[in-house]
Amino acid sequence: MTNKRSLKFGAIIHGVGGSVTGWRHPEVLSDASVNFDFYKRQAQTAEEGKFDLVFIADGLYINEKSIPHFLNRFEPLTILSALAAVTSKIGLVGTLSTSYSEPFTVARQFASLDKISGGRAGWNVVTSPLEGTARNHNIRSHPAHADRYKIAEEHLDVVRGLWDSWEDDAFVRDKESGVFFDPEKLHRLDHKGEHFSVEGPLNIDRSPQGQPVVFQAGSSEDGKSLAARSADAVFTGHERLEDAQAFYKDVKDRAVANGRQPQDVAILPGINPIVGRTREEAEARYEEIASLVTIEKALEYLGRFFDHHDFSQYPLDEAFPDLGDLGSNAFKSGTDKIKRDAKEQGLTLRQVALRSATPKTTFIGTAEDVADRIQEWFESEGADGFIIHTDIPSGLRNFVDQVVPILQERGLYRLDYEADTLRGNLGVPIPENRYTAQRRGEASVPNSVESATAN
Amino acid sequence: MTNKRSLKFGAIIHGVGGSVTGWRHPEVLSDASVNFDFYKRQAQTAEEGKFDLVFIADGLYINEKSIPHFLNRFEPLTILSALAAVTSKIGLVGTLSTSYSEPFTVARQFASLDKISGGRAGWNVVTSPLEGTARNHNIRSHPAHADRYKIAEEHLDVVRGLWDSWEDDAFVRDKESGVFFDPEKLHRLDHKGEHFSVEGPLNIDRSPQGQPVVFQAGSSEDGKSLAARSADAVFTGHERLEDAQAFYKDVKDRAVANGRQPQDVAILPGINPIVGRTREEAEARYEEIASLVTIEKALEYLGRFFDHHDFSQYPLDEAFPDLGDLGSNAFKSGTDKIKRDAKEQGLTLRQVALRSATPKTTFIGTAEDVADRIQEWFESEGADGFIIHTDIPSGLRNFVDQVVPILQERGLYRLDYEADTLRGNLGVPIPENRYTAQRRGEASVPNSVESATAN
Ligand SMILES: Cc1cc2nc3c(=O)[nH]c(=O)nc-3n(C[C@H](O)[C@H](O)[C@H](O)COP(=O)(O)O)c2cc1C
Ligand SMILES: Cc1cc2nc3c(=O)[nH]c(=O)nc-3n(C[C@H](O)[C@H](O)[C@H](O)COP(=O)(O)O)c2cc1C
Repeated sequence: MTNKRSLKFGAIIHGVGGSVTGWRHPEVLSDASVNFDFYKRQAQTAEEGKFDLVFIADGLYINEKSIPHFLNRFEPLTILSALAAVTSKIGLVGTLSTSYSEPFTVARQFASLDKISGGRAGWNVVTSPLEGTARNHNIRSHPAHADRYKIAEEHLDVVRGLWDSWEDDAFVRDKESGVFFDPEKLHRLDHKGEHFSVEGPLNIDRSPQGQPVVFQAGSSEDGKSLAARSADAVFTGHERLEDAQAFYKDVKDRAVANGRQPQDVAILPGINPIVGRTREEAEARYEEIASLVTIEKALEYLGRFFDHHDFSQYPLDEAFPDLGDLGSNAFKSGTDKIKRDAKEQGLTLRQVALRSATPKTTFIGTAEDVADRIQEWFESEGADGFIIHTDIPSGLRNFVDQVVPILQERGLYRLDYEADTLRGNLGVPIPENRYTAQRRGEASVPNSVESATAN
Repeated sequence: MTNKRSLKFGAIIHGVGGSVTGWRHPEVLSDASVNFDFYKRQAQTAEEGKFDLVFIADGLYINEKSIPHFLNRFEPLTILSALAAVTSKIGLVGTLSTSYSEPFTVARQFASLDKISGGRAGWNVVTSPLEGTARNHNIRSHPAHADRYKIAEEHLDVVRGLWDSWEDDAFVRDKESGVFFDPEKLHRLDHKGEHFSVEGPLNIDRSPQGQPVVFQAGSSEDGKSLAARSADAVFTGHERLEDAQAFYKDVKDRAVANGRQPQDVAILPGINPIVGRTREEAEARYEEIASLVTIEKALEYLGRFFDHHDFSQYPLDEAFPDLGDLGSNAFKSGTDKIKRDAKEQGLTLRQVALRSATPKTTFIGTAEDVADRIQEWFESEGADGFIIHTDIPSGLRNFVDQVVPILQERGLYRLDYEADTLRGNLGVPIPENRYTAQRRGEASVPNSVESATAN
């Protein structure tokens, strides 16, 4: 690892795509969301491009209005584990909600993925936006936005505590003496908090990267606080560089206020680059995808951000309706922005819906154009890197074949992986086991199973 | 598929082994329980042997007295998903507890494994024996044995309901017309039961095998009832042929009483075959492993079945202590048997502990001997096949290289896979989607999202 800041890339793999009608594009495999070969090829393409990671987004509630990809897709931990077996360097990051899971199960599944992959796992912490999620789970009601983030903080603390159950050198495995592990290096968490009670220890040890990388994907005030306190990386989304810069500075400042280094948390906006041999070809690619969207589908797509609100009830060509508080308990950062933009720019409902369903990326043009834009955002502190999502499979291929070499030539991006672990490549620190740290600092380790047993 | 009954085989892959000191054997990789290459090689060996499946057991609570393999091992769904990517025909069966999981999550992860593997997933339903499991999860207390099985029945019903959310031909994916799916073939479960409330639908569709195969591993009365009503296969354990035959007949009779066919539920006892070039060599192999066990370790091993009861408090060479009800809320079928055998055979604590820790298999001797014993159990209806667990890695290799060819020559075992799915190979029926069946039988389908929405 050099000291110089170096670009980071992730690739979202999302089957038929995150858009409402992208699956109709002639190039898209219409069963891609449940096609393992497709996922494997995309991951291998990203690994060819020396990407830091592949990223699997997720959701826990669908209805008949959900976009195609959401209706029928792989679950993140299973697909990432399968990808671990057919890749060797690239990180494997998956979304899992703290509002609808047991910390013990989450800690264990990510730790297992981390061991299987030799230190390449990452967890994208989300809180789940949709009310219906509660109806799919045995949880009385969907917690309010602020409560979801309180639950998330505690959940993540518990998971991280469990990940430290075993110190790095706990497993002695000495056949001669018959000592398998050192009981002083096994620790029970004994967590008793407001939302979770978890004893531990976890039944799996740490990987070469210490703990899986923690991503956070929620851009509200509460989301930024969580990221600044606890995350190694942030997945966010911005259309304009100024917004990206403000977000970047805000999260880094908060991290510093939390006693961390700015580089301890990587800021990675999602972008949808469209590369053509000429600018015209790139524009034509965008138009080809945008033209597949009907206004009905766009309204459905918009509705999902507001917890499947029905927008067909409003006039299309009048000002975007006043929705009051609606949506702020769902994708809060997203719905706040939609409302703000509509007001500031005086948009109609039709305009808002079409913009949401087919956002016009500024990362479009020739490979040089896209590389320039990336360099601009990176060097002006709008981003530490990017999460690439493309609507058609060749989008990732083109990016890897055409944009990556330019960034490499410019010395902005690695020629090869620096490390075998995701932390090593991202350049985020390996957390020392908390008990080992205590042991170094103090004479006694209060939470070891030894002393707990002695009590 | 022929009509003739044909032997089935599964291979447990369990790292350093299910025994208390087996990891000290010179041949055992001492980190095997968290070594992906080891799991991969074992799975590929089993696939060479045309085994129906690999099997991953599991547990959700450890303490410093747990056996080495339990302390630090892969989580079943993640390791099976990774194995899916490096195998092509063999089934992938994993243990997951109904007492400590959300049906929506379980349905989804197994369905995802099933899609990733092209129809090779299986779920081994267990209820979790150990009290401490509750302290690792946000569940007030460990449910009593009978309650655990009631929860299991309902949990499994919900999971199976979710697995039918989409009829087989629900996804139209017609790019021309823009129809991605047929909403009449999407169904909401709307389950409201005593233990679970789950709306659905599930966000993943069925695999070529319809639904993942359901195993059951619990041999108490309640366990047998659950298996007879709901399971496609049973994992059990018997030392003597007579016991195996009684169990076999009992479960098949119960299945018939439930309106099923005897062949709808496969009975697969676990065995630990030891093959030598001569009988003496096989005996020597057994002794080599048995000699690694100390009485202290054997007492700890025995203790775990009784929820980590401390047996060091009793005299070793007196009659096995009277434990009253102890253990019957944990591994009930196991502890009942230990108590019964100790009484009937007048065993001391030392004898009971050593027998538990190093059970002497009757599937031992030359390859011919072991094949004979397998044929005997199979033909006299003690088993439909076997789950093979071996303490040392070469145990599986020897079985595949030496015993399998004999069984093939005798026409008892397949020369190659009959099918690409686990159901196809096991010969258990593909369950028709419940709504498709209703549609065939009746005019209207009450639970479709269409009609639910219309209400
Ligand atoms: C870039 C980005 C990606 C997200 N990805 C997911 C996801 O994969 N699954 C999910 O349930 N929520 C996802 N979310 C939603 C948030 O995690 C969160 O559940 C919701 O938006 C409320 O948080 P917020 O208001 O802080 O953004 C994402 C949000 C952002 C900004
Ligand atoms: C052959 C066999 C294998 C089992 N495998 C597991 C397992 O992998 N994980 C687990 O938690 N329990 C396992 N069990 C335990 C049972 O599923 C159950 O939790 C406990 O024994 C109580 O059920 P029973 O009294 O009906 O046997 C197994 C039981 C048997 C008989």
